[in-house]
Amino acid sequence: MEVRDFRVIKSEIRVLGVDDGKFTPHTQGNVIVVGVVFRGGCWLDGVMHTEIAIDGFDATEQIASMINGSSHCKQLRLVMLNGITFGGFNVVDIKKLNLATKLPVIALTREKPDLDSIREALKNLPESEERWKMVLAAGEIFEVTCKGKRIYLELAGISLVDARKIVELTSTRSSFPEPLRVAHLIASGITP
Amino acid sequence: MEVRDFRVIKSEIRVLGVDDGKFTPHTQGNVIVVGVVFRGGCWLDGVMHTEIAIDGFDATEQIASMINGSSHCKQLRLVMLNGITFGGFNVVDIKKLNLATKLPVIALTREKPDLDSIREALKNLPESEERWKMVLAAGEIFEVTCKGKRIYLELAGISLVDARKIVELTSTRSSFPEPLRVAHLIASGITP
Repeated sequence: MEVRDFRVIKSEIRVLGVDDGKFTPHTQGNVIVVGVVFRGGCWLDGVMHTEIAIDGFDATEQIASMINGSSHCKQLRLVMLNGITFGGFNVVDIKKLNLATKLPVIALTREKPDLDSIREALKNLPESEERWKMVLAAGEIFEVTCKGKRIYLELAGISLVDARKIVELTSTRSSFPEPLRVAHLIASGITP
Repeated sequence: MEVRDFRVIKSEIRVLGVDDGKFTPHTQGNVIVVGVVFRGGCWLDGVMHTEIAIDGFDATEQIASMINGSSHCKQLRLVMLNGITFGGFNVVDIKKLNLATKLPVIALTREKPDLDSIREALKNLPESEERWKMVLAAGEIFEVTCKGKRIYLELAGISLVDARKIVELTSTRSSFPEPLRVAHLIASGITP
């Protein structure tokens, strides 16, 4: 999907923040993934969830289904992911997620993704080459400063200019966007 | 526990909002109960959870353990419950919860609790007299107006004057306090 510029970014733009719950690494089973609908950086408007396989290959598909099947879908303007790996190394292909949902996607991390370490870690998993391709498919990693702190962005279907504006707009309580801060609090707070 | 007046009510008073998730009525099993730490009516500071038995007798104990075992416990100043029945007719004894947590408790509902209907419904459950006593133990039901809408309060360890102030203070997005609005969105959003 091509990059489409936002004509206008409303202060109450509806953003979905996505994060995963706690789980025991390298086990079989599923982990919950929570989606939080936020109005800009202001308030919570809804919560949705799905499950993905730990170290599996279904994160992109399950998150897309969660979004497209939600009653909030038509109001959403953007998806923010807490990085591109969920439930261990279940990698989200952000370009496919962008295509499947028709929504721009921003994957954010506080730490710079260390591609060498990721590649090494992937070698311990089946189908490591396929996973590695999905990591690379996220494209360029942009370093930006938000409220005085560095964060790292990977983008699909959105320009860096617009992405920075929306990250700034939604980072009302910290240097990290509220939809992701709250998705993290919920996903970790509801898992054992 | 006696009623203790608040010396001062800070705008960012930490309030725990508690609500239950979705479940199939009259089945055996557990339902998730979510606690949401809110700073006044402003923003979410943490999430905790527990499980209770559908139509069981463990709601008071499980919610007290969830609160007392939480890292947020010392910062909390008040507990708000979405009514006094969770997971069907698992009744919270708000006076016992007040004693067990040393925190004032407000149970709120939008609809006036219909005691006659509750008593009738309880007859279909085992130990209905014990449940009925717990319903009555909540004491007087106060009708108050918040942002132009009627709501109903049952109180333990807090005066009506203070309870009204805190309900008004935390009702920033609707006529219902944010800790309960958000607890409801989360608990229902993470259950199937």
